[in-house]
Amino acid sequence: MELWYTELHTKGSGICFKVKETLFKKHSKFQEVTVLDTEDYGRMLVIDGLVMLTERDEFIYHEMMAHPALFLHRSPENVLVIGGGDGGTVREVARHKAVKSITLCEIDDVVLDVAKKFFPNLSTQLFSDNRVEIIVDDASKHIKDKKENYDVILVDSSDPVGPAENLFKRDFFESLKKSLKPDGIVVLQSESPFYHLDIIKNVRENLLGAGFDNVLFYWAHIPTYPGGVWCWAIASCTYHPIKDFSLEGKDFNMELKYYSPEIHKASFILPEYFKRALSEVLSFEF
Amino acid sequence: MELWYTELHTKGSGICFKVKETLFKKHSKFQEVTVLDTEDYGRMLVIDGLVMLTERDEFIYHEMMAHPALFLHRSPENVLVIGGGDGGTVREVARHKAVKSITLCEIDDVVLDVAKKFFPNLSTQLFSDNRVEIIVDDASKHIKDKKENYDVILVDSSDPVGPAENLFKRDFFESLKKSLKPDGIVVLQSESPFYHLDIIKNVRENLLGAGFDNVLFYWAHIPTYPGGVWCWAIASCTYHPIKDFSLEGKDFNMELKYYSPEIHKASFILPEYFKRALSEVLSFEF
Repeated sequence: MELWYTELHTKGSGICFKVKETLFKKHSKFQEVTVLDTEDYGRMLVIDGLVMLTERDEFIYHEMMAHPALFLHRSPENVLVIGGGDGGTVREVARHKAVKSITLCEIDDVVLDVAKKFFPNLSTQLFSDNRVEIIVDDASKHIKDKKENYDVILVDSSDPVGPAENLFKRDFFESLKKSLKPDGIVVLQSESPFYHLDIIKNVRENLLGAGFDNVLFYWAHIPTYPGGVWCWAIASCTYHPIKDFSLEGKDFNMELKYYSPEIHKASFILPEYFKRALSEVLSFEF
Repeated sequence: MELWYTELHTKGSGICFKVKETLFKKHSKFQEVTVLDTEDYGRMLVIDGLVMLTERDEFIYHEMMAHPALFLHRSPENVLVIGGGDGGTVREVARHKAVKSITLCEIDDVVLDVAKKFFPNLSTQLFSDNRVEIIVDDASKHIKDKKENYDVILVDSSDPVGPAENLFKRDFFESLKKSLKPDGIVVLQSESPFYHLDIIKNVRENLLGAGFDNVLFYWAHIPTYPGGVWCWAIASCTYHPIKDFSLEGKDFNMELKYYSPEIHKASFILPEYFKRALSEVLSFEF
């Protein structure tokens, strides 16, 4: 017997994976958390029926989640990761020696348990690096009393349905801005430009509305995400992600598999269809 | 009843599409040619069970097949398209006013018939632009008596199994080189860097072995191709695709949806895993 898992990106298209075994399945307080062992992509974390990560291609997502902001900021000492209970983003942040503290704020402790048990390659730093503090809470509550506290905030959320819905709203972006130091940088995973242009445009408007300058998007290919392409918003009132990008004084001695300083710059060059969709809201003002 | 078409990229992963209707299906002399009407991606051309193109995302493939070479060459007058009987690549070549003749060499006349009937948005130029000549033949035969004839050759082949297998071999690349003018440029679709690194490395070795200099790869995201990412080899003994790229004297007045001069440069910046795989053969010599 062959078992296949199919994720539908829309009602008419999807991606499918041959499954060796279901390793874990639980309805947590917030969502359905599943771990599959797949034939081609190794272990796979599925939340509410959507692929969150696979062992084979998670490197792209997590490197691109962390390094553009971490290499852009002159001295990223205090970093907050929102969501990302699998540990992959924290693993990448922890490579940076300048970083003195990493706070992970994950709403669902079941994700943390699963990461520890099934994804040791992602979660080792989470439980062994003494710079890491784990907080199990709603991020919007956590950041309320953290005024001008963080250099970099990485919003490694799930999709804007269910528990992560609030993490795409303007109120939340305003709180983010307050909890960042004045020269801080925020990065938000922002879905697929091929499928979710409306969400992306919304993220852009809400970041601008929350008072961020320099709101830009960058992208990467991710085989197991809808359309094989994903993007991130980066925003800061101080740094421009291209003009202010410099490796001077930085230690780039990392064994990375996707990101490089050249990829940093290239990933901000958007395909025309994506650029054009964003330009439709370029005149947006609050 | 719901009908779904699934393309397996490997034995353990694939992509699936809801199908409204099968519009055409025929075993030609060379291959099985099918046209599906899909819910999400419009009409889809499937050859031997593999997605060749869909109406929704073909623009990425065809723009990236044609424009990097066409904008790189100072005066691309005579262009040969090998394969590509759907007409999409010819449509993009035809946008260039400098082009005086476009020869399409397609082995399978069934593909041409299907293009005419089911894909008018791709094939209009094929049958209406008087610069276009269609040759139904094996390309390796056609180019044998075309010494120093073409400025640009675009190898828009199907995958290297079945009738297109020979289009990935060194002998064929040597013939290509002879049929190009000394300052000619060749571009070959070269599969998915995420799934087919061996094929890509092979293409690189065979191009170098055939005497081409400046053998580089560029990439784009393509939702319906394996891994959502695709690449092309570009080779020339005269032009370097980055150093010699200039829009001076060129008319860039085109309504493109993916390609831009900035994307041209950015698409040569390869993710580390891809760059590293290529560097393993960098010392290759014949």
